Amino acid sequence: MALETAKGTKDYSPEEKIVRNEVVGKLVSIFERYGFSPLDTPVLERYDVLSSKYAGGAEILKETFKLKDQGGRELGLRYDLTVPMCRYIAMNPTTKMPFKRYQIGEIFRDGPVKLGRMRQFTQVDVDVVGSKNMLADAECVNIAQTFFKDMKLDVVIEVNNRKVLDGVLDAIGVSSDKSTDVILAIDKLKKVSVKEIEKELATKGVKGKLVDELLKIFNAKGSNSDKIKKLRKIVKSDSGIEGLDEVEELFGFTKGKNVVFSVSLARGLAYYTGTVFEVFMEKGDFKSSLAAGGRYDKMIGNFIGNREVPAVGISFGLEPIGVVMKPDAVRKTVTQLYVIPIKALKEAQKICEKLRSEGLNVDIDLNDRGVSKNLDYASSYDIPYVLFVGKRELAEKKVKLRDMKTGKEKLIGLEEVSTNVS
Amino acid sequence: MALETAKGTKDYSPEEKIVRNEVVGKLVSIFERYGFSPLDTPVLERYDVLSSKYAGGAEILKETFKLKDQGGRELGLRYDLTVPMCRYIAMNPTTKMPFKRYQIGEIFRDGPVKLGRMRQFTQVDVDVVGSKNMLADAECVNIAQTFFKDMKLDVVIEVNNRKVLDGVLDAIGVSSDKSTDVILAIDKLKKVSVKEIEKELATKGVKGKLVDELLKIFNAKGSNSDKIKKLRKIVKSDSGIEGLDEVEELFGFTKGKNVVFSVSLARGLAYYTGTVFEVFMEKGDFKSSLAAGGRYDKMIGNFIGNREVPAVGISFGLEPIGVVMKPDAVRKTVTQLYVIPIKALKEAQKICEKLRSEGLNVDIDLNDRGVSKNLDYASSYDIPYVLFVGKRELAEKKVKLRDMKTGKEKLIGLEEVSTNVS
Repeated sequence: MALETAKGTKDYSPEEKIVRNEVVGKLVSIFERYGFSPLDTPVLERYDVLSSKYAGGAEILKETFKLKDQGGRELGLRYDLTVPMCRYIAMNPTTKMPFKRYQIGEIFRDGPVKLGRMRQFTQVDVDVVGSKNMLADAECVNIAQTFFKDMKLDVVIEVNNRKVLDGVLDAIGVSSDKSTDVILAIDKLKKVSVKEIEKELATKGVKGKLVDELLKIFNAKGSNSDKIKKLRKIVKSDSGIEGLDEVEELFGFTKGKNVVFSVSLARGLAYYTGTVFEVFMEKGDFKSSLAAGGRYDKMIGNFIGNREVPAVGISFGLEPIGVVMKPDAVRKTVTQLYVIPIKALKEAQKICEKLRSEGLNVDIDLNDRGVSKNLDYASSYDIPYVLFVGKRELAEKKVKLRDMKTGKEKLIGLEEVSTNVS
Repeated sequence: MALETAKGTKDYSPEEKIVRNEVVGKLVSIFERYGFSPLDTPVLERYDVLSSKYAGGAEILKETFKLKDQGGRELGLRYDLTVPMCRYIAMNPTTKMPFKRYQIGEIFRDGPVKLGRMRQFTQVDVDVVGSKNMLADAECVNIAQTFFKDMKLDVVIEVNNRKVLDGVLDAIGVSSDKSTDVILAIDKLKKVSVKEIEKELATKGVKGKLVDELLKIFNAKGSNSDKIKKLRKIVKSDSGIEGLDEVEELFGFTKGKNVVFSVSLARGLAYYTGTVFEVFMEKGDFKSSLAAGGRYDKMIGNFIGNREVPAVGISFGLEPIGVVMKPDAVRKTVTQLYVIPIKALKEAQKICEKLRSEGLNVDIDLNDRGVSKNLDYASSYDIPYVLFVGKRELAEKKVKLRDMKTGKEKLIGLEEVSTNVS
């Protein structure tokens, strides 16, 4: 038997898990500051819920892990957190709206495994269900802005509106049967060259002046309000104008020059109905999005089948955030102090208990090892301070504290340990 | 299609999830104070790992959810967190010992569903791997003591040692082929009457004077050290004496009169080799254990097949803790303040942003509702304070704060909100 992880899954070592917990902790604290509450749904769902007509769709079902319980019931591992949330709302019809929930959970997709694409991964979702107000959309944007600022990451939060995009295509004369193809081509603007986009559009029958106009609109420079003004001259459909009103309203609730109106932002998923947003690194080679979301006013209503339930949300990608994050953005060790008893285990243990009751994270040598092995151990777990507890020093109520970074040691009073370490 | 959860699984509503997060948060904070670090392993494991000879055993395999990935590989949903930890240690042979890890994760067992027994549930495990020192065992006990004190629950932490139990049986003349049966019968002392135990022992051929002696030993009163002294007169085998030495050493590292030497504590599982402990409510009708664990010095070594790896750990049951916990032990809402704009949405949003940047959890009306509907909403989500933001009051830099519990309202300055709410 090979002692291995299942294909497409991985362990998180303490070092990795501490970092991940810190990132998730920051997100949770911001979600809660914005008035969102946690929800938890099971990993196992009934297969007929996952395969429902308005759920994730045929493509995602191909990648769904399917299994049966002892009673022969068909089950699946959830492939997102949105379908379970829809089911929860359907099962709890008295839920007060707006329902502001966040959920952090494991997601499973039995697809091809490559760098950054696992079969089990963690999704971090925050959604407002039951409000059409653009302030809800703005809260998603502002949460992202707060989080990335907190992480000391310089990002650009691109914002667009599907209705505006449709309005633009309509205005320059792209027929509605081609609009989906055009949107999908446009969505690649960040990743491939303009030439390639032109080529792809040409195969869809969109070329010449149309393409020039499109690119002119998408490449327009200026402030968000400049861009809105320019588009007001082009977009004429009712829906397009509504979209521009929404964008303007949304920008009224956000601030900071890194929230940018990006008319070419499309996002692949079909279910978005209004605002879409996506967060990228401002500079550097990392082009994948760090967070993304948008407004989906039809999906939940369709899914539960009996009423209109507008919704907007954003999802954070722990994997890409892990790739770009600054090494010093979060703590990497939870243990603050490692105690080495010098023939004084009982006394050292009592000191540990006291420091712990003061809120310090304290480990102690359990294996009666020599000093150098103990220092190795503390250093291998990146513990910043070591405390030597010896009988001679204790007689004078003193202990020796070593700063593992500098190697400096000093004799201090027992009551001084806490303040010297934290 | 029925929009339902899969059999044996449940959702955690925000109210339930907030409470659960608080309990887990307390546990994590205590684990980290004792120098434990988090580990995370996947929900999906290779089936051959789960079904390995030294893993959970045949009984547990019958309840293991089994599935295949697209490549036809046999997988299973993990049924505990111990086997994945063993696999992790086997795959990471340079892990520095002792390895002190905690893990919180979903566990799956496809067994009969009844009250308090689900097919998906959360396990909270903390283990010291790689130390034989009784201080490691004591840390598990002390963690439990700290946690339940923090939760304001009066519990008894019963401690025993398998070697002592074997030593007692040996001393009174129970033949070793009967000792497992006797231990299993004894384990029921808490749940069934002495009569029933006597009956069960009789069918195993253990009766008369033997049973009387057993019950005399198990019912002996006195302090922990009294009991140890009494047993030193009875137990004669080397292993039994070693067990008593261990118990004595362990009690030297613990304190408080709720840590009790309970010679009849056996615990069903076969893999324990020394210390066992189990936490019960001191009074009341709730007889299930709230936390339990023990020392298992052989299991990991057997599992990974090449070296001796002693270990001790304790597992906390979130479900039983949820049943007995005091209603006021943890917070039940994360949102502290709900803002109702009176025709002043923009201004109210700015105030929200400021309060959030001060660390307050703030929600705001997103649906432009009237005052009474808004108060209903705040009250349905148990939000303790409501802030009315109106233009007239704002002109004097004032806002109106309502305490939802008392219904009292007062006009305060903008800069006073934070201190009035938190």
